[in-house]
Amino acid sequence: MDIYSLPLPVVRRLPKYYRQLDDLVYDGVERISSGKLAEMMNITASQVRQDFSFFGKLGQQGYGYNVKTLKNEIGVVLGIDVPRTVALFGMGHLGRALTQHFEFSKYNYSLAAAFEINPDLVGSTVNGVRIYHYNQLQTYLASHKVDAAILAVPRSAARYTAREIVDLGIKFLWNFTNVDLKLPERDAFIEDVHFSDSLLCLSYYMK
Amino acid sequence: MDIYSLPLPVVRRLPKYYRQLDDLVYDGVERISSGKLAEMMNITASQVRQDFSFFGKLGQQGYGYNVKTLKNEIGVVLGIDVPRTVALFGMGHLGRALTQHFEFSKYNYSLAAAFEINPDLVGSTVNGVRIYHYNQLQTYLASHKVDAAILAVPRSAARYTAREIVDLGIKFLWNFTNVDLKLPERDAFIEDVHFSDSLLCLSYYMK
Repeated sequence: MDIYSLPLPVVRRLPKYYRQLDDLVYDGVERISSGKLAEMMNITASQVRQDFSFFGKLGQQGYGYNVKTLKNEIGVVLGIDVPRTVALFGMGHLGRALTQHFEFSKYNYSLAAAFEINPDLVGSTVNGVRIYHYNQLQTYLASHKVDAAILAVPRSAARYTAREIVDLGIKFLWNFTNVDLKLPERDAFIEDVHFSDSLLCLSYYMK
Repeated sequence: MDIYSLPLPVVRRLPKYYRQLDDLVYDGVERISSGKLAEMMNITASQVRQDFSFFGKLGQQGYGYNVKTLKNEIGVVLGIDVPRTVALFGMGHLGRALTQHFEFSKYNYSLAAAFEINPDLVGSTVNGVRIYHYNQLQTYLASHKVDAAILAVPRSAARYTAREIVDLGIKFLWNFTNVDLKLPERDAFIEDVHFSDSLLCLSYYMK
């Protein structure tokens, strides 16, 4: 199977594998069995072996996987080997928190610019990232390549901003607005961040 | 089946159902079929019907579900009907962003206090939330009930803080530190927020 047409559940597990392997590299672990990795992932060993079968021969029966090699392989499947540029929309607290604290470089991303409509913020710089006025976006994109947009605007501005951004050519959105953007007529890929979902799961287990 | 022993994948889908139903209520939709709801959820109609079979009789063949009733039922299963109190640990940018922008009340949570070690922040108030010194935690807990802790401390402080918090009696952690806390010897429930996972999925689809 083409590694770019993996089933969605497999794709969803890849970042988790990557994180676990990153921790193992950090801890100096060199080899890991599918059983041990499965345990860390809370899935079965056969699930791990099946997932990895999509990428070809990564391990050897009885020897386990080389942690560094596996991490790199999964990184390549995930596209971490290709440097990407993102722009951030909305420099409220969430936007600023991401700008100051999110380790974009860890994932080979570079946060190139931020866009805002608040004139008090436009022209300033946060953590080396210049804040432009939203109406400068088209001009900016004429001379800068932006692979993905981080959407951190208020709910009320979410749909409108998303449509404009996609129409201006940024086809990948990382959506923090909690709004289901639904742009079926546009050829866009939207990845929603709904971290309140996990708070609700916490509520469930509290009962 | 006891609704408090639902299979994990069902539990994980509940917040998503709740969000979709909340949007439908907002849009004034009164009834919805399992087919339509399945489409919104990107799952099959039989999956929806199977999930809902755990909560007893919610819909009637051919009539679909009453949106408001269903939302409330799922809310109850999720525990939204029970008011909860949380305390936040670490008032860096992420902690501040959550304090200022996260709608805790929407999920019947109240953010009662924040804890920090930075003396410049201790004693001040952000969005009505008082910041205490971390060494005041034990005293604070002696007179305040805290159901869950939000962990937004730096990576290096994550494990230590988590252990202390759990030992002081807060058994539910909403973990934003990106550190796999692993507290097997402690009776704690940890819900990790790994939003970089979705950035990596975005990278995958860019390739």
